[in-house]
Amino acid sequence: MIDEVLSSLAKAKSFAAFTTMFPSGKPMTNMMWVDADDDHILLNTEVHRRKYRNVAANPFVSVMVFETEDPYRYVEARGRVVGEVRGPEARAHIDALSEKYRGAPYAPEIRSERVILKVKPERLVMH
Amino acid sequence: MIDEVLSSLAKAKSFAAFTTMFPSGKPMTNMMWVDADDDHILLNTEVHRRKYRNVAANPFVSVMVFETEDPYRYVEARGRVVGEVRGPEARAHIDALSEKYRGAPYAPEIRSERVILKVKPERLVMH
Repeated sequence: MIDEVLSSLAKAKSFAAFTTMFPSGKPMTNMMWVDADDDHILLNTEVHRRKYRNVAANPFVSVMVFETEDPYRYVEARGRVVGEVRGPEARAHIDALSEKYRGAPYAPEIRSERVILKVKPERLVMH
Repeated sequence: MIDEVLSSLAKAKSFAAFTTMFPSGKPMTNMMWVDADDDHILLNTEVHRRKYRNVAANPFVSVMVFETEDPYRYVEARGRVVGEVRGPEARAHIDALSEKYRGAPYAPEIRSERVILKVKPERLVMH
């Protein structure tokens, strides 16, 4: 089970600063929608994206989840991408995220294939 | 000169997701106040902090600066910490940041020594 504060923050309409590592070892950070299941932080991207290719090569990431109304309230989770889900479940998940954040199914064109990244937190820093 | 959009975003009451690298090569991300001068993104920390020790060993960082009112509006700057300023200038700078964000001089105890980190952007991603 992941921490309750992290879980409720990730399930709310929070944003996540998601950091992956280039093969060079340099970091890149994206603003993302976020979700959680019982054991993971969940992020949803597409398989052609740089961040997906980064985690395929190096699973260590940080996910800083913060309250949209008050960025001082955040949890930093350091951990690893330990699994992924593609196909209809990943498509349904981006629609559910879009409903949460936008109040409507996901509209933008899907350029390659949606994929859910499952991040297992190994270290949490609470703020 | 840094990009105008980045500069105005960093000088406004925006927040920054600041990512540094542990010696292990794993990333850590902190929520920080942010500022800019003509050529750099400016961040203000203390010299005993992990993020300061990280950049002293590995200057490559990412700084994702976003609008507090609308996190979809952000600029990701990847670059290097190319300089630092300590002493009275760093102390005056944290007071100026505190005035910007809190409307009052910086109140928390300063546990070691304040330091301004000067980040030179090398690659920008606009959103």
